[in-house]
Amino acid sequence: MSDPLATPLGPGREFDRIRKMAERWRSVARGLGDDCAFLEAGDAQLAVSIDLSIEDVHFRRAWLSPHEIGFRAAAGALSDLAAVAAEPLAVLLALGAPEKEPESTLHAVADGVGEAVRQAGAAIVGGDLTRAPVLVVDCCVIGRTGAPVRRSGARPGNVLVVTGSLGGPRAALAAWRAGREPSPDARHRFARPEARHGAAKYLASLGARAMIDLSDGLGGDLLHLLAASGVGARLEVDKVPVHTAAQREAQLAGEPAWAFAVRGGEDYELLAALPAGVTEEVLRAAPVPVAVIGAVEEGRGVRAFFHGVPVELPGGFDHFGAQP
Amino acid sequence: MSDPLATPLGPGREFDRIRKMAERWRSVARGLGDDCAFLEAGDAQLAVSIDLSIEDVHFRRAWLSPHEIGFRAAAGALSDLAAVAAEPLAVLLALGAPEKEPESTLHAVADGVGEAVRQAGAAIVGGDLTRAPVLVVDCCVIGRTGAPVRRSGARPGNVLVVTGSLGGPRAALAAWRAGREPSPDARHRFARPEARHGAAKYLASLGARAMIDLSDGLGGDLLHLLAASGVGARLEVDKVPVHTAAQREAQLAGEPAWAFAVRGGEDYELLAALPAGVTEEVLRAAPVPVAVIGAVEEGRGVRAFFHGVPVELPGGFDHFGAQP
Repeated sequence: MSDPLATPLGPGREFDRIRKMAERWRSVARGLGDDCAFLEAGDAQLAVSIDLSIEDVHFRRAWLSPHEIGFRAAAGALSDLAAVAAEPLAVLLALGAPEKEPESTLHAVADGVGEAVRQAGAAIVGGDLTRAPVLVVDCCVIGRTGAPVRRSGARPGNVLVVTGSLGGPRAALAAWRAGREPSPDARHRFARPEARHGAAKYLASLGARAMIDLSDGLGGDLLHLLAASGVGARLEVDKVPVHTAAQREAQLAGEPAWAFAVRGGEDYELLAALPAGVTEEVLRAAPVPVAVIGAVEEGRGVRAFFHGVPVELPGGFDHFGAQP
Repeated sequence: MSDPLATPLGPGREFDRIRKMAERWRSVARGLGDDCAFLEAGDAQLAVSIDLSIEDVHFRRAWLSPHEIGFRAAAGALSDLAAVAAEPLAVLLALGAPEKEPESTLHAVADGVGEAVRQAGAAIVGGDLTRAPVLVVDCCVIGRTGAPVRRSGARPGNVLVVTGSLGGPRAALAAWRAGREPSPDARHRFARPEARHGAAKYLASLGARAMIDLSDGLGGDLLHLLAASGVGARLEVDKVPVHTAAQREAQLAGEPAWAFAVRGGEDYELLAALPAGVTEEVLRAAPVPVAVIGAVEEGRGVRAFFHGVPVELPGGFDHFGAQP
């Protein structure tokens, strides 16, 4: 078990609240601050995480089918295992639903959770089912890890990389909020996130020093990783891979595409700090596209550049205050 | 890891729903049906469980302080570890609260959770914090176990025992529902449940064959244990230890005290099947009072007797449909 609060938490209102709770708990709290908690049991090291998904906070029924609600909740939770390069082992599902909810809704949510769990190669081992004022899908995920990749290991000189492309889920949200139906590719990125277990394993095999999954947007999550590691970074925003749907929505919003993507939330891609010297050729062999977007530096915070010109980095996504 | 659905689920609407979900999941679901799921990781065997506690379903703010809401949610979740005689190791807390909830409420809930976790000798290792329409306190508990006591090991000839006394929490609920303030001892039993970790360890050391914690009332949980074990039982209802507050409330309700206690919910006491021959003297050495209330028999279901006269056993508590 790691030291109390070994990994410092990043900025943001949600993190201020968690920090205050951890202070109150003192010796009863251990090792908060990573995407997963780590537990030693016998000769095994486990990674565990819990993720609450609540109707009208994390999703709306008008946007997603019950199957997608279940899939997305489970994939989002499993993504926390990818963030520390742990192998998915087991999922506990606690489901809350209004008393008059049709059985068919519960079955479809259960099917969606089951599909995400099957894709990850894990099993549903337990759960809870209760009445609730709205749909509540809560997943506790447990993984096995030899040498977990934490948030806190980034060092000056490391190369910053990101998987996939960013801003697709935010493009879907922007369309829904404007009363439009999102494009199918944007909707798919929101409704069917893919936890990056294969990429996580590959990046860990390259000696990744620090990793985080992008749930608060690259802008927010990069700050979490840097705060945990006690370092700063240089970010080349023109290198950030932007999802094509995000490029379209950014134009409608009158925002630079990179800024739209950096402020996106719930991309469930991975941001990692790799040792210097990793080649483009090696990165091309990853199971998903991996882009080099910057480098870890001495100091604090992020210096962002667009084709070499300094730019201001927009903030991340605050789950506690945000509307879905 | 045990076989799919190795432990049959007992009767009740909630269990029908869980059964249907497990059928849909097929190979992706494993070993549902005990108070905890069991995971093998390296040379360690872990017990894990998840428990959702939702405002106006499991508690009301008019009844409990925020500190008590946190304590009760965590103690109730930890009780699932006692039910399988696992040593509490770690807790993950997912907390949902309305956006305008004062920080002081969150801190008090966190303090209550922390107190229950500290009492159990465990640690809070992770969590989630999010906006929700009502207070949601969700605890995932992880314990270590050498030889877990499951629900399914009861055999004809075993002695049925129960810890503590029953019906106190139901007495508090009955008073609140009637618009009265419960007596302090009833209120205390509801607000500050004690997970029976010490008693669980002691009963396991006596060779307990099957065990369950009483969250659905003795009437309901005994049926779960018997269904899981594929056996029946003889229950001497006059031997059931009834909390003094339940005796008073039963009189007001015009119900026999034993029936009031048997239909109680959320007692968080332990029901265990012990090998025949266990002596009263050995039971007296347990860290809490342990009463012999019947015996496991061949067959199915429960034959209940009041001083030798056959009586009808009232049903248990259905969380999914029940009002708090």
